[in-house]
Amino acid sequence: MSGAILLVDHGSRREEANQQLEALAQILRDRIEDTIVETAHLEIVQPDIDAGLDRCVERGATGIVVLPYFLAPGRHTRSDIPEAVESARERHPGVAMRIAEPLGIHDKIVELLLERLEQASRDS
Amino acid sequence: MSGAILLVDHGSRREEANQQLEALAQILRDRIEDTIVETAHLEIVQPDIDAGLDRCVERGATGIVVLPYFLAPGRHTRSDIPEAVESARERHPGVAMRIAEPLGIHDKIVELLLERLEQASRDS
Repeated sequence: MSGAILLVDHGSRREEANQQLEALAQILRDRIEDTIVETAHLEIVQPDIDAGLDRCVERGATGIVVLPYFLAPGRHTRSDIPEAVESARERHPGVAMRIAEPLGIHDKIVELLLERLEQASRDS
Repeated sequence: MSGAILLVDHGSRREEANQQLEALAQILRDRIEDTIVETAHLEIVQPDIDAGLDRCVERGATGIVVLPYFLAPGRHTRSDIPEAVESARERHPGVAMRIAEPLGIHDKIVELLLERLEQASRDS
């Protein structure tokens, strides 16, 4: 079985944000061997989730985990992403697709917030 | 000088997401002593940033760091939040206001993504 990760963010009109998702995908590629890593955006810019899932299948994936790059559960992670995945399941019935949880509250997020706070307090 | 943190997220129609910001604020309150911690939402639900900043000042803050609970730079962190803070600066000229960077790409985010991926791969 060939595994894939589809890293999904909201999509932004600012290229800076879209490039960040691609940079993150490259970090995941370097960290996880033998796994296809593709990116997709929910809105605004292509590829969308449909296109991203199709691309994983074209590249030979038989199992895909959709990894939401979202902080909190909301309409996007609870409705929009599951609906897109359901539609892709119908197109690719032989491919197992799972959706990971959004990042959520976690010690690592708290530590990072404290780091950003410290940086802002230091800059004058 | 009395310091405050205004933790800001996008705001969601889902109460689950809004409650998460409040839970995160409580964690920060427990971690950082002698600092006012308030929450605000950019859109959809109150309090908005204006109301959140005013509330910090009412509680006696003379210095406020706006801490965006956003992953990536985009319109919200580069335009919407700075504009709201600029308008609050005019209302409260004696109060120092700074804006922290969004969480961004960071080892801690990568580690947490890998943890969510592992959880999704384990669940069947």
